[in-house]
Amino acid sequence: MDVTIGQVFISEVIGTALLILLGAGVVANVVLPKNKGFNSGWIVIAFGWGFAVFAGVWAAWKSGAHLNPAVTVGIIANGSENFVEGVPVNFTNTMVYFGGELLGAMIGAVLAYLAYKKHFDEEADPATKLAVFSTGPAIRSYGWNLVTEILGTFVLVFVVLQLGNSPHELGPLAVALLVVGIGLSLGGPTGYAINPARDLGPRIIHAILPIKGKGSSDWGYAWVPVVGPLIGGVLGGLVAAAVA
Amino acid sequence: MDVTIGQVFISEVIGTALLILLGAGVVANVVLPKNKGFNSGWIVIAFGWGFAVFAGVWAAWKSGAHLNPAVTVGIIANGSENFVEGVPVNFTNTMVYFGGELLGAMIGAVLAYLAYKKHFDEEADPATKLAVFSTGPAIRSYGWNLVTEILGTFVLVFVVLQLGNSPHELGPLAVALLVVGIGLSLGGPTGYAINPARDLGPRIIHAILPIKGKGSSDWGYAWVPVVGPLIGGVLGGLVAAAVA
Amino acid sequence: MDVTIGQVFISEVIGTALLILLGAGVVANVVLPKNKGFNSGWIVIAFGWGFAVFAGVWAAWKSGAHLNPAVTVGIIANGSENFVEGVPVNFTNTMVYFGGELLGAMIGAVLAYLAYKKHFDEEADPATKLAVFSTGPAIRSYGWNLVTEILGTFVLVFVVLQLGNSPHELGPLAVALLVVGIGLSLGGPTGYAINPARDLGPRIIHAILPIKGKGSSDWGYAWVPVVGPLIGGVLGGLVAAAVA
Amino acid sequence: MDVTIGQVFISEVIGTALLILLGAGVVANVVLPKNKGFNSGWIVIAFGWGFAVFAGVWAAWKSGAHLNPAVTVGIIANGSENFVEGVPVNFTNTMVYFGGELLGAMIGAVLAYLAYKKHFDEEADPATKLAVFSTGPAIRSYGWNLVTEILGTFVLVFVVLQLGNSPHELGPLAVALLVVGIGLSLGGPTGYAINPARDLGPRIIHAILPIKGKGSSDWGYAWVPVVGPLIGGVLGGLVAAAVA
Repeated sequence: MDVTIGQVFISEVIGTALLILLGAGVVANVVLPKNKGFNSGWIVIAFGWGFAVFAGVWAAWKSGAHLNPAVTVGIIANGSENFVEGVPVNFTNTMVYFGGELLGAMIGAVLAYLAYKKHFDEEADPATKLAVFSTGPAIRSYGWNLVTEILGTFVLVFVVLQLGNSPHELGPLAVALLVVGIGLSLGGPTGYAINPARDLGPRIIHAILPIKGKGSSDWGYAWVPVVGPLIGGVLGGLVAAAVA
Repeated sequence: MDVTIGQVFISEVIGTALLILLGAGVVANVVLPKNKGFNSGWIVIAFGWGFAVFAGVWAAWKSGAHLNPAVTVGIIANGSENFVEGVPVNFTNTMVYFGGELLGAMIGAVLAYLAYKKHFDEEADPATKLAVFSTGPAIRSYGWNLVTEILGTFVLVFVVLQLGNSPHELGPLAVALLVVGIGLSLGGPTGYAINPARDLGPRIIHAILPIKGKGSSDWGYAWVPVVGPLIGGVLGGLVAAAVA
Repeated sequence: MDVTIGQVFISEVIGTALLILLGAGVVANVVLPKNKGFNSGWIVIAFGWGFAVFAGVWAAWKSGAHLNPAVTVGIIANGSENFVEGVPVNFTNTMVYFGGELLGAMIGAVLAYLAYKKHFDEEADPATKLAVFSTGPAIRSYGWNLVTEILGTFVLVFVVLQLGNSPHELGPLAVALLVVGIGLSLGGPTGYAINPARDLGPRIIHAILPIKGKGSSDWGYAWVPVVGPLIGGVLGGLVAAAVA
Repeated sequence: MDVTIGQVFISEVIGTALLILLGAGVVANVVLPKNKGFNSGWIVIAFGWGFAVFAGVWAAWKSGAHLNPAVTVGIIANGSENFVEGVPVNFTNTMVYFGGELLGAMIGAVLAYLAYKKHFDEEADPATKLAVFSTGPAIRSYGWNLVTEILGTFVLVFVVLQLGNSPHELGPLAVALLVVGIGLSLGGPTGYAINPARDLGPRIIHAILPIKGKGSSDWGYAWVPVVGPLIGGVLGGLVAAAVA
């Protein structure tokens, strides 16, 4: 069944909105005060983001569920002719994917803010508020932070491109558990953006929304979780093509 | 194979009873004193409720395993003609689903109370006893609590309605993991009822049962986890239909 | 393909040995001093036992992987004619299942002891040593402990008997996750034996083995995790037959 | 489709590199200071290594995804004629598997070091730095440590050899969850190498890399996680053949 580019846009918006609603949501639950999941640890963060991917991918099946510009560029670098049936890889369609992903991420961030509104109002520390929206480095070092984001995204895109090669009926669970694994294993230094839209969209929302007591949106770091994942995604697509 | 409305009732009663026995059970394990799982954290709560769904859905396959009035109204809002083969969507059948869900939730709450009887006797704080039965807000604010419940239930119903659209053989595991995810990500502010029967049925049981040292059943809040999930379920069904 | 009763015996021995090696193992890891998983909490216990079931069921596929007398009696109560193809339900074959399950549990307990030998030597408290082998109540009350074990085993056997009724390709993962769920939700008061062989076999080994500094094998409680699961299993089988 | 021995080598290198990048990565996240997952516990370690296997197995499907010399020798001991179609079991091909596994493990260790570079620089304790690369015993006792590694690897190889015998569509998830289970249940005393390449490759890298403030590579223990897994793997293959 052919998919139209309009359907792709809506599908990516919805899927990425769900991804960020649940992904930003789990961070809010763990870091904002008085939550029932307050301080419940990294295992909650990693499974929360993984099942956020799970929900988003179900919802965006029509467009192939990229939800992530790094996946989009990885598919291009891999040499695919179509994103999905009826949607050839070209500049316009790529921009539609990017646009849907970014817009969806922004919508998801607003929804997560609304779900946790009263807990944002309680929190005093501006850095904690920002952490719900966007990633930040544990130890600031742009070069090494970039390395970590490249590696994490490489694993994501390279393995996602292998998922069709082995017999299984896991559907979206495969990529969800892969993302749980990347979070557990490579999330320590930078909080694993591994997705430019996931980081940039909510950061824009953080800058725009009238959040009580908010501080800087840390634009100085904002390029790392955009550039790193894009590099990692391209490398993942190229290596996957090389060893296919 | 056609299913009779009597089978639907029994199926929903059994499935929802299992859901609440295990769901209230995991809360009891974590919050009541002297339990082996005492204070074991949000990850235990979220996976416990998710696998409670898992068990309940297996047991209620005949009726399509709603176990939740928000799912029932979501399916109606989505425009389905039948709940399951032989059971058309109409007022009577809807009431049978609602009735089975509520009765099942009440039975499950009694069973969970019996499983943890000695630990209820140990607990001094009435609010903790109530927490095993029904949800309550971390920060009381009916409007914002409603928003959180609407969002959580929207995600549940919208994604459940997508599960048939992607190739997978996960069966009831898909909805179970989705519920784990919603708990991790959106459970912080209200404890994610996302199901009117899950909250109201056990609250009625809490009011009725002669629990040693029990306090208020908090009827002032009781409408939020009923109205919020119903709104979220309808929205989920409508949006799913709009983008199908 | 017909299975011989000798194959059934070997299959149940191996499967139950794996179940108890991994199940007793995870308790040892969490409760015995100096372990890398020391004090790592209830989530580790529950997933550890669940994946112990996972491994045991794979290994015992030939005999239908009961690994548990409560499952065996549940299948009988459900009215099955054969345990597996070629093995009719009768007294002799039932005894072969029971024997294989008990012997396997004893072997598994010895292996788990060997895997954690040095950590047993470190531990001072005899009750902790016993906890690796067999379950004990959080609050001793034989009647209520029995209720908890009956409920947990009822859920296990009733849901296991539904697993064939829904389309899925989860294989042994379904029962593994069900056991994770029962542990999270109903394990608090008694440590969820839900399996007479799982409790009795290792308790016999605890009584026999020359464990440094061991104390009582708590035979006064030993009947509860045998009788409770058998009652729960029969009830599970009967109710499953009644609503089929 | 026949696979060439060159494809086997590349496949094992890539798969084992991913396994160790993610496996060493999760240890780094938990033990090195200032990480977002610092001190997040054994559940993170066990799921992290399990999903590391998940990623590695997807990536190495062409070669049958051994990623582990203990699996390779287990398959030989089991009496297989071919590793994969077109690759007969013989001395040369076995060496290619071993070589790919060891080289992959070394590459993965370098990548994990790079991902966590700044956190290695922060850490003062040399033993903690080594723990990211290789396993070490909780209580040093070469004989008993060997017993634990033999048992863990026996479970791995024996159960992996059963995975084809039961209907399921879990694909690489089955072995991933098995490894989670072995970690939870048998990882306490030695940190579960259960794979000679997993331990030796990164240990060599630890000895070679100019890591700031590093200490001994503990070569005195290095034979245990090589010899134990090889014995366990052979036993697993032999017992699997005996009961087939």
